[in-house]
Amino acid sequence: MANAKSSKRRPAVAIGNHALDLDIFSSSNGFSRLPFIQPHLAVFSQPVLNDFAALGQNVHGQVRRYIQQLFSRDTLWPELLKDNLELQDRCLLPLQEVENHLPMHIGDYTDFYAGRNHAYNVGALFRGPENALQPNYTHLPVGYHGRASSVVISGTPIRRPCGQILHDPAANPKKPSLTACKKLDIELELGAFVCKASKMGDPVSIGNAKESLFGVVLLNDWSARDIQAWEYVPLGPFTAKNFGTTISPWIVLTDALEPFLVQSMENSTELLPYLQEKQKNNVYNIELEVDLINSSGVSTTVTRTTSRNLLFSFPQMLTHHSIAGCPIQIGDLLGSGTISGAEDGSQGSLLEQCANGKTKIRLNGGEERIFLEDGDTVTITGVAGSMDVDMVGFGECTGTVLPAHEL
Amino acid sequence: MANAKSSKRRPAVAIGNHALDLDIFSSSNGFSRLPFIQPHLAVFSQPVLNDFAALGQNVHGQVRRYIQQLFSRDTLWPELLKDNLELQDRCLLPLQEVENHLPMHIGDYTDFYAGRNHAYNVGALFRGPENALQPNYTHLPVGYHGRASSVVISGTPIRRPCGQILHDPAANPKKPSLTACKKLDIELELGAFVCKASKMGDPVSIGNAKESLFGVVLLNDWSARDIQAWEYVPLGPFTAKNFGTTISPWIVLTDALEPFLVQSMENSTELLPYLQEKQKNNVYNIELEVDLINSSGVSTTVTRTTSRNLLFSFPQMLTHHSIAGCPIQIGDLLGSGTISGAEDGSQGSLLEQCANGKTKIRLNGGEERIFLEDGDTVTITGVAGSMDVDMVGFGECTGTVLPAHEL
Ligand SMILES: [Ca+2]
Ligand SMILES: [Ca+2]
Ligand SMILES: [Mg+2]
Ligand SMILES: [Mg+2]
Ligand code: NI
Repeated sequence: MANAKSSKRRPAVAIGNHALDLDIFSSSNGFSRLPFIQPHLAVFSQPVLNDFAALGQNVHGQVRRYIQQLFSRDTLWPELLKDNLELQDRCLLPLQEVENHLPMHIGDYTDFYAGRNHAYNVGALFRGPENALQPNYTHLPVGYHGRASSVVISGTPIRRPCGQILHDPAANPKKPSLTACKKLDIELELGAFVCKASKMGDPVSIGNAKESLFGVVLLNDWSARDIQAWEYVPLGPFTAKNFGTTISPWIVLTDALEPFLVQSMENSTELLPYLQEKQKNNVYNIELEVDLINSSGVSTTVTRTTSRNLLFSFPQMLTHHSIAGCPIQIGDLLGSGTISGAEDGSQGSLLEQCANGKTKIRLNGGEERIFLEDGDTVTITGVAGSMDVDMVGFGECTGTVLPAHEL
Repeated sequence: MANAKSSKRRPAVAIGNHALDLDIFSSSNGFSRLPFIQPHLAVFSQPVLNDFAALGQNVHGQVRRYIQQLFSRDTLWPELLKDNLELQDRCLLPLQEVENHLPMHIGDYTDFYAGRNHAYNVGALFRGPENALQPNYTHLPVGYHGRASSVVISGTPIRRPCGQILHDPAANPKKPSLTACKKLDIELELGAFVCKASKMGDPVSIGNAKESLFGVVLLNDWSARDIQAWEYVPLGPFTAKNFGTTISPWIVLTDALEPFLVQSMENSTELLPYLQEKQKNNVYNIELEVDLINSSGVSTTVTRTTSRNLLFSFPQMLTHHSIAGCPIQIGDLLGSGTISGAEDGSQGSLLEQCANGKTKIRLNGGEERIFLEDGDTVTITGVAGSMDVDMVGFGECTGTVLPAHEL
């Protein structure tokens, strides 16, 4: 993050309504009671968290618990922060005065398709319910390489894309035109950042995959359905997906999410051993919500679901990703695939909610939507746990649709 | 590159059998007769060429001509290098003593599919000649996002990948197994590096695309056909392609390739205006050769063709890539797609040459091949022009297949 006082990009931790500026905190001896981190304090003055991630999950957990301890009512070291108003003034910044930046340098971004209900719903729309899931779907986490340069931080406006669109699929010969996208959609996803590299040729075993994951963000994989329909055969989505992917700014450490692990969706296919996890609880139970706010500011919750609606876990995705030898790097981002529940109002894309245009969503205030309109803002929020136990909140993942450029 | 004397990664120019060490040359006043480059000399001591690329094509051309001038028999400034044996000794390194590294930091890598003969041949193998090309194929340069972390420099060994393979496609239910790839293949391609960034939401117009291209390398897109066949529906190739992509080490500036531009393959489809180039000559006429050297060292030329066998040019690929708003970065790498001629022995993949296993290639010395065996070395070479005019040679793009890990 950065702020008005200093445009230097530096790491921070969100605590309640404040950001703890780790650069200032660390250089003001904030970590003096955590001896083993002393040789590594430089990680807290980097513009991105890659070097901190590289220290490993054990360190992430200890740093997290150390900061929790400093903020607890009966902290052992009140002199460090609780009773040090001068330091508090310098290192605790009101969240609304903070400008967020991408928290990691993302070497590569890969988007999976592990939301089984989404894959089923979309498959059923285009191929009917019998052939909804492709034969490989339950055997491996289907995924494709995404565009790292197009991953942007929450709040970045999204320009409605233009592209080749086939308006009359029945015409012969087929005549696409260059048009502004008319089927601009969202995809509700989680993203996971990698904290451990692997060498080319050496797959990450399923036993080692979990410790390779740094933390989780909310992710909106903006999608142009009409561009996608024409371009994606045979090599997959391309310009329909590379115009912007939004993530929430605060990475929630996997360490903090451990209490919220639950079983993934049931898979009738017995997985090959390389994908079998010892731990039954392998996906997060994060309550997710998608709000659509129209240009007049009227907000409607269009989706309520949970991230347990995944057929594969992030460790399984990472292991499969590297099974042929793909080198994994610290800062790589994995998208989960669209998360949809089975009921109405729980689907993570408008394509599903409106059955590709057959039905409409009624918004509060009377407007209707099939796909997104210019000026619409989409905000994803996520919470794990409830008020009475340790609740973990995610930062907002939001973006507003700008009108397409004139053609 | 780097060498035994100094492991510092630094840029160089290949001239005959030598590498001109630009770090030493520049810091020894080698560029003193090129005044406008003086404020930018730091680009020559970087480990990668991204900062040099950022200076723009005009600068690339002037630096290239300046160095040519210094190496010409009647150079204007013999004192700088020709008569300066001490500097020659320090900055001219025998090529065989030089260790090559990736010449650019590659933010994103995208692989296109613009080799029409290849697309036709592969389509005909799997769908018959009538449906060989998909309806979108002639309208846009089909492409997919590749894996930047898996791009490696010539000489890097390639471990035979393992992955999910469906050995009996007719079985019901389908039962893949985790197996070492049995259909390890090559793809003969050109790669182009980008030297100009674009902002998210602002496409690169076709008129500006050409000046966004820094230079060209040879590229081998190693491919696991059996893994690809099972995984690629519906989101495209993934682990079948992300275990290694080899490029030649010396980037040939687009400036140097300008004389070798020729017309691309004829396209019966009239392109949408956003893809129409003013210049008729838009693809390079580079003579390409693929040699397969078996583990006994016996070499066979398996492919002879030319890079004019492309339906779309690099400027068209770049423009299409960004049409929906994808941000382009300096150092991005575009693969052309597999380059195949129409005749026997001109196809850029073994899949085509052996009709997916129906025929065999006879190697010199009596061995046969369908796909690659462990210990095989594949070397791509490329030359533009002939001996009597300015010939431009590419660096070798080579890699040896290591046996798969035990499962
Ligand atoms: Ca997605
Ligand atoms: Ca390829
Ligand atoms: Mg996206
Ligand atoms: Mg490859
Ligand atoms: Ni990078």
